[in-house]
Amino acid sequence: MSNPAQKTAANTAENTLADIVSHAKEYGFVFPSSEIYDGLAAVYDYGPNGVELKNNLKQLWWKAMTQLNQNVVGIDAAIFMHPLTWKASGHVDGFSDPLIDNLDSKKRYRADVLIEEKAAEYENAGDKPRADALLAEMGRLLTAEDLAGVKQLILDEKILCPISKTANWTDVRQFNLMFSTQVGAVAGDSSQIYLRPETAQGIFVNFLNVQKSARQKVPFGIAQIGKAFRNEIVARQFIFRMREFEQMEMQFFVRPGTEGEWYEHWKATRRRWHEVMGLPAEKLRFHDHDKLAHYAKAAVDIEYEFPFGFKEIEGIHSRSDFDLTQHQTLSRKKQQYFDNDVNPETGKPYGNYVPYVVETSVGADRLFLATLCQAYQEETITEGEQTKTRKFLKLHPAVAPVKAAIFPLVKKDGLPDKANEIYNALRHDFRLVVEEKDSIGTRYTRQDLIGTPFCIAVDHQTLEDDTVTVRHRDSREQTRMPISELRGYIGEAVSLSRIFEQL
Amino acid sequence: MSNPAQKTAANTAENTLADIVSHAKEYGFVFPSSEIYDGLAAVYDYGPNGVELKNNLKQLWWKAMTQLNQNVVGIDAAIFMHPLTWKASGHVDGFSDPLIDNLDSKKRYRADVLIEEKAAEYENAGDKPRADALLAEMGRLLTAEDLAGVKQLILDEKILCPISKTANWTDVRQFNLMFSTQVGAVAGDSSQIYLRPETAQGIFVNFLNVQKSARQKVPFGIAQIGKAFRNEIVARQFIFRMREFEQMEMQFFVRPGTEGEWYEHWKATRRRWHEVMGLPAEKLRFHDHDKLAHYAKAAVDIEYEFPFGFKEIEGIHSRSDFDLTQHQTLSRKKQQYFDNDVNPETGKPYGNYVPYVVETSVGADRLFLATLCQAYQEETITEGEQTKTRKFLKLHPAVAPVKAAIFPLVKKDGLPDKANEIYNALRHDFRLVVEEKDSIGTRYTRQDLIGTPFCIAVDHQTLEDDTVTVRHRDSREQTRMPISELRGYIGEAVSLSRIFEQL
Repeated sequence: MSNPAQKTAANTAENTLADIVSHAKEYGFVFPSSEIYDGLAAVYDYGPNGVELKNNLKQLWWKAMTQLNQNVVGIDAAIFMHPLTWKASGHVDGFSDPLIDNLDSKKRYRADVLIEEKAAEYENAGDKPRADALLAEMGRLLTAEDLAGVKQLILDEKILCPISKTANWTDVRQFNLMFSTQVGAVAGDSSQIYLRPETAQGIFVNFLNVQKSARQKVPFGIAQIGKAFRNEIVARQFIFRMREFEQMEMQFFVRPGTEGEWYEHWKATRRRWHEVMGLPAEKLRFHDHDKLAHYAKAAVDIEYEFPFGFKEIEGIHSRSDFDLTQHQTLSRKKQQYFDNDVNPETGKPYGNYVPYVVETSVGADRLFLATLCQAYQEETITEGEQTKTRKFLKLHPAVAPVKAAIFPLVKKDGLPDKANEIYNALRHDFRLVVEEKDSIGTRYTRQDLIGTPFCIAVDHQTLEDDTVTVRHRDSREQTRMPISELRGYIGEAVSLSRIFEQL
Repeated sequence: MSNPAQKTAANTAENTLADIVSHAKEYGFVFPSSEIYDGLAAVYDYGPNGVELKNNLKQLWWKAMTQLNQNVVGIDAAIFMHPLTWKASGHVDGFSDPLIDNLDSKKRYRADVLIEEKAAEYENAGDKPRADALLAEMGRLLTAEDLAGVKQLILDEKILCPISKTANWTDVRQFNLMFSTQVGAVAGDSSQIYLRPETAQGIFVNFLNVQKSARQKVPFGIAQIGKAFRNEIVARQFIFRMREFEQMEMQFFVRPGTEGEWYEHWKATRRRWHEVMGLPAEKLRFHDHDKLAHYAKAAVDIEYEFPFGFKEIEGIHSRSDFDLTQHQTLSRKKQQYFDNDVNPETGKPYGNYVPYVVETSVGADRLFLATLCQAYQEETITEGEQTKTRKFLKLHPAVAPVKAAIFPLVKKDGLPDKANEIYNALRHDFRLVVEEKDSIGTRYTRQDLIGTPFCIAVDHQTLEDDTVTVRHRDSREQTRMPISELRGYIGEAVSLSRIFEQL
């Protein structure tokens, strides 16, 4: 749905994503999964620098939720859950994509994606009304679950398979996106379970266990970080849409009638969090959902401007009492809370109710990708008479994989020993490296490329007065300081408190 | 395999485990999974205190590996891997249990467990030679993969189904313990993949990507924390043996011929780690494996004395070049390292080789359970004229879920505001709670039960001189100190540095 001018911009954007994909692999952030076996589609592994960056991001979210708020506590529910969970949540019956096969090429497609691509063709050709009409008709048919109608629309629009170039299509069928497996060895007792397609349900089924054991009163929240799995047909854009991914979700339980104010509270709080973490305000926007699930009161995405456009990194959803009520019905166990607070209108306690829920749900891998895209910098610098391009990752020191690199200027005169002495004095507090090889300029470049905020040079003067040169990644400025001040200096820069103070 | 006297001891031990299971649920450490649907066998969820304790243990291991050692780096590989990975590792062909069904009860059993129970009967009856002979014969048959022989042994020993009391058995068959699922929607392209049964292979397939991007030289290690899945037939002892569990593994790559010294190094280093973390030396022991895999050079378990006996919490394995060589063969991609170091015997560089591997593998859930069992204390105390039993969790402050609880002595006179002021000043640094409800004694008890090391009482004197009373969990002693000293005091106690200094 882009005009030709936008197309050019999009192409440039693709190149930038390609740069990031290649940077991520070369510098140990993200590798294709099982690469020696030619990879596994839509699955990736985090390398040595990637896992540190991701862990730091996860820890910041976790602490911002469970340490800064007394009324938010965490859990870690298993990926395996009782299969009725997914009946209650609606995933068994409704979590599917409409698929269609071309009988000549034997290729399978998402029917809605084929139609969207056709609409984009109309729009690119200048016929936006026709594009809009097509999309509206598709929306109507899908909402009515009229799959025969969707197929007829594909035939009427003369949509062809991109491979076989024929319209020899099968019927459209719904394909469930949940992965299933068999648990238990006993034939009669063996049962099909699912890999969770979202972490939220692990929170809902534990609602009362958590509320009671943590002695929480409504309003309160339950936070969780964990893996989820979706058998996506169209998985693409690097780690943006994977079949195995990680969510950072918080379900906030509130008294019915107060969900609106809490929705606004968390919408603002979560957006501020991303800004404080380093995603600039102008590259973030809210995107209200066009269509709401039948039970939802409101839903908005926080979108970041990736090289491939504005895309969701977090969703805020006002989910009513839908999930808890569904579980109450299927499990026949009351999912209610007794509210002792006095209702000023009746003069009596609010009493028993099923709480309403406001959800905040971050894609951890998407946040990682946004952080990497935002940090990736190219600048032109002048060194002496030479002009060159410097690449570096402008990561917040609190999330950088390596906090400081220690460089003995030369590999002799006792400088390496002095560097190791500094390493040993600081390694209990920070993740550091010592590098001896190559020129000091090459070593600076290497650390710039993985986002190390400080490089500490140990030279001959160090042996005399116990001072070192600290070189700053972003400004390339150098400061001389006593070794004894390093712990405090680095500690201040990487401290989470400085981030938390701004929240 | 216990005599009657041991049986009594074992019963007591079971009771203690039962106490811990019930404590874990009531105080928010571990809940049965999907409990509202009557649970899912051998799967558990971590509650609000459990997830904090487990995260703290994981972080300590991670930092001890990747922050204290420059030559150990981390990764986070996906649970999904290319299926050839498990062909190479031997899991597709060999990762199975011998199962047998009783045709009357329709129940399925592990054939080896049935025979072991028969041997235990002989031993309990005083006939140890007969027990030993039976176990030896079973071992011989299983090694020879003579499943018909195993069935005949069950028939010869007149082993009956505990339910139907008959010997109407099926043949013995091997049952693979890996969970499988289908990935991809395109019929022709859909393929069976497995949920990884161990995290180690995610490290092996990434060996060269990590070595190159992290610029590591042999010897070096790759650490990983992650979930693994096994379809256990006999899953029991709470979170000790689950179908979904978490591993903390490190594969250390060494020059062939040096694996013996590195095996000894990591064996000692890892045992020391457990001791420094609070598992006492007398409750830890090494247990050498009786039988080694054909490729293994040496293997030992670090066992902790649980209420149900000494059981493995970590394994140290000298795995030779087996895994990398297998992947090299199947992937047809060289898994070699060029070693520039000069061999003193030849005067030339060691050159190309497939490194040998020494593995350290901790069960994170088992470490959690050991930590909980060790921390669980009951003592008789005298308060005034009363004698009572005090229960508390003697957790190391660095791993305790809540670092300090702040108690206004009464709910008036501005004391709650003062307590919240202290909370707000310290919450950027520590996970804290403020509790106003119930007597101060009840509040102390509540924090003892979740292992909070410090309780801070805010009283009327606090309003005058800004001092508070700090009550210590283990000694129950109280110290008066200025509010301004709290950050330093708590910070020192929960600091990881103090643990790392001892490693």
